[in-house]
Amino acid sequence: MSSRADERTVGELSEAAVLARILERIGPSRALVGPGDDAAVVSAPDGRVVATTDTLVHGPDFRLAWSNGFDLGWKAAAVNLADIAGMGARPTALLVALAMPGSTTVAFVERFAEGLCAACEALAPGCTIEGGDLTVSNTLTIAVTALGSLDGRQPVLRGGARAGDVIAVAGALGLAGRGLGILFDRFRDASGEAVPVDADLLDDAERDALRAQLAPTPPIALGPVAADAGATALMDVSDGLLLDASRMAAASEVSIGIDFAALGPDPQTALTGGEDHALLAAFPDSDPLPSGFRAIGRVLPAGPHRVLVDGRAHDGRAGWDPYRDWDAHRG
Amino acid sequence: MSSRADERTVGELSEAAVLARILERIGPSRALVGPGDDAAVVSAPDGRVVATTDTLVHGPDFRLAWSNGFDLGWKAAAVNLADIAGMGARPTALLVALAMPGSTTVAFVERFAEGLCAACEALAPGCTIEGGDLTVSNTLTIAVTALGSLDGRQPVLRGGARAGDVIAVAGALGLAGRGLGILFDRFRDASGEAVPVDADLLDDAERDALRAQLAPTPPIALGPVAADAGATALMDVSDGLLLDASRMAAASEVSIGIDFAALGPDPQTALTGGEDHALLAAFPDSDPLPSGFRAIGRVLPAGPHRVLVDGRAHDGRAGWDPYRDWDAHRG
Repeated sequence: MSSRADERTVGELSEAAVLARILERIGPSRALVGPGDDAAVVSAPDGRVVATTDTLVHGPDFRLAWSNGFDLGWKAAAVNLADIAGMGARPTALLVALAMPGSTTVAFVERFAEGLCAACEALAPGCTIEGGDLTVSNTLTIAVTALGSLDGRQPVLRGGARAGDVIAVAGALGLAGRGLGILFDRFRDASGEAVPVDADLLDDAERDALRAQLAPTPPIALGPVAADAGATALMDVSDGLLLDASRMAAASEVSIGIDFAALGPDPQTALTGGEDHALLAAFPDSDPLPSGFRAIGRVLPAGPHRVLVDGRAHDGRAGWDPYRDWDAHRG
Repeated sequence: MSSRADERTVGELSEAAVLARILERIGPSRALVGPGDDAAVVSAPDGRVVATTDTLVHGPDFRLAWSNGFDLGWKAAAVNLADIAGMGARPTALLVALAMPGSTTVAFVERFAEGLCAACEALAPGCTIEGGDLTVSNTLTIAVTALGSLDGRQPVLRGGARAGDVIAVAGALGLAGRGLGILFDRFRDASGEAVPVDADLLDDAERDALRAQLAPTPPIALGPVAADAGATALMDVSDGLLLDASRMAAASEVSIGIDFAALGPDPQTALTGGEDHALLAAFPDSDPLPSGFRAIGRVLPAGPHRVLVDGRAHDGRAGWDPYRDWDAHRG
C-alpha cells in the first residue's frame, strides 16, 4: 500500500493504471485462471457452481457522505457473500464491476479494493476477487457477482420449510436498520442531503448500529453449517424479517409464526429493518439448533397470512422495495 | 408477450411486479436452481466454471436515443458471451443486474428481457438467464455476468501465442466502429446530444454497420471451435484490433504483425474500431485454420513494438479507454 493517499482522479489515469492499483490490493488469485484474461476460470469441485449478483447504487443504496471506499467495498462483498451462504454454500470467488465518475479519486478506489478484500478475508476465508470490470458513469455503481461451492451438499432453498419446523436466525436483526435510522435522522441537513457522520455524537450502541449498516458482518460460515445441520429452508434477510419470512413462507406454502419477545431489545426494528443479512432458517423440531442460531418462531400450516407475529397478522411496513421507497429527487 | 406496450413506469410497480414481467420473457430455467432463490445453482460439468462480467452504462456505452430496450438486452448479452467464447468455452448462464431510473417504462424492461433472451438463443443456444438484480439508479446501468463451461478443454489464454503462429480472426472487424461513427457524425444535434436514427437516411451498408454497433453478433460458437483446432492464444476484440492485439502480444511476450491488406475494405477502422467482439486467435502455422477464421497476420519474435502493421509500428489511436475517451459533460 502507498504511504499517502493518491488524490488524483481516475479520469487522470488510464483504465490500465486504475486496474493495476486494484490488482495490487486484492491479493493473489486462487483460481485456475485469475484476473487479466477475458474471463476467470474457477474451480467447481462438485460439478456445480452457486452464483448470485447484487448491486449497490449511489443514492438508494449508499451515500458517499456516509460511506467511505473501504466500507463500500466491504459491504458490496458482504451482501453478495450472504446470498451464497443463504444457499448453504461456501463462497469461492467474486467478480466486481465498478462504474464511477471520472472525478473519483484513486485513493477511493484503493480503499474500495482493500475493503472488498478485507471482507472476504474476515467473512469468507478462501474467497478471492477473480475478475471484474471498470467503466465510467455519472452514478457510482458497484455490481458484484459471487460464486460458491456446495461441496457436495444439496442447496437449501426457501421452499422447504414444513409445518412444525423451528424458525431460527443467525446474525443481527434490525441493527443495520437502526443504523440507517441514525443516518437519516441525525446526519442530514435541512434539505435532506447526507452530511458526514460525527462519531463523537454517538454512544457505543449507536456506533455499533452504524457499523452494522455501513459494513455489515453476516455469519457467512453458518450457511454450510445450517445445511449440514439439516435446515429445511434457508435464506439471507436482506429486506427485513417480515418481508423475507413472508417470501420463505410463500415459497414453502406454509405460514410462519414469529415470537415477538424473541427478537431482542428492539423487536419492531428487527421485524422491518433490512440490510443485516442475517441467515433465516427452518430446522426440524427434533434436532438441536446448530451453534450460532437462535429460535425466533415456528413454521405453521398455511393460513390466510404468510407471517404471524405472536399469532396476529402484522400490519406494519413490511420491508424495503427500491421502486417504491426511494425518491430519486431527494437523492 | 402482451399485445400492447405497457407505458407505465417501473416506479409505479413493485419490484416483484417488474421482476415478474422479466421472468415471463426469459424462458424456462435450465439450471439446477434457477431464478427466485438467493442464488442460482448452475451445472459445471467438468468441475470448473468460466466467469466474466461486463457493464453497459448510459452515456459512455450507449444512448437511449440510439438504442432501444431490445438492442440493449441483446448487446449486454453478446458482449459477455464473447468473453466466454474468448476462453474457448461454451456459455451456460447469465446473471443480469439492471439499475434504472424509476421513470423507465415497463415496456422498455420487457423489450430488454426479450433482447437478452433472443441474443442467447441466436448466439449461444443452451445459455439461459438464471439470476439477476433490480435496483433504481439515476443512470441506466446493465451489469451482466456470464458463466461458461470448458467441457474438459484447457482454457485458451491470451498468453500462449508463439513466434511463427498465424494470427486469425472470426467475425467482423471495424463494422461496429463504423456504426458508432455514423451515430456520432449524423445523429447528434448541434449541441452534441444524440437524436433518434432515421434509417431512411442510410444505405444498406450503413444500416449493417449500425446493426453491428447496436446489436452485435459475435461468433460465439467459434470459441470452442478455435480451442479444439489448437489455438495457442484467443481473446475477443472489444477495444479495437490494435489495442487487443497488443494485449495478446504483451501477455505472450511476442510481437504481432498484421497485414493491412487482409483487413477488408476499411482497414483503418478495422484497426481501431471497437465493439465488434470478433475472436482474435493464434494458431500453429502447420494446421489449417478452422472454418470461420481468416488469417490477418503472424506472430513475430518480441521486438520493440508489440504490434506492427505491414512491418511498421502503427502510430494511430490504439483503441477505446473509458477513462480518457468519454467526456461525461458532453453526455
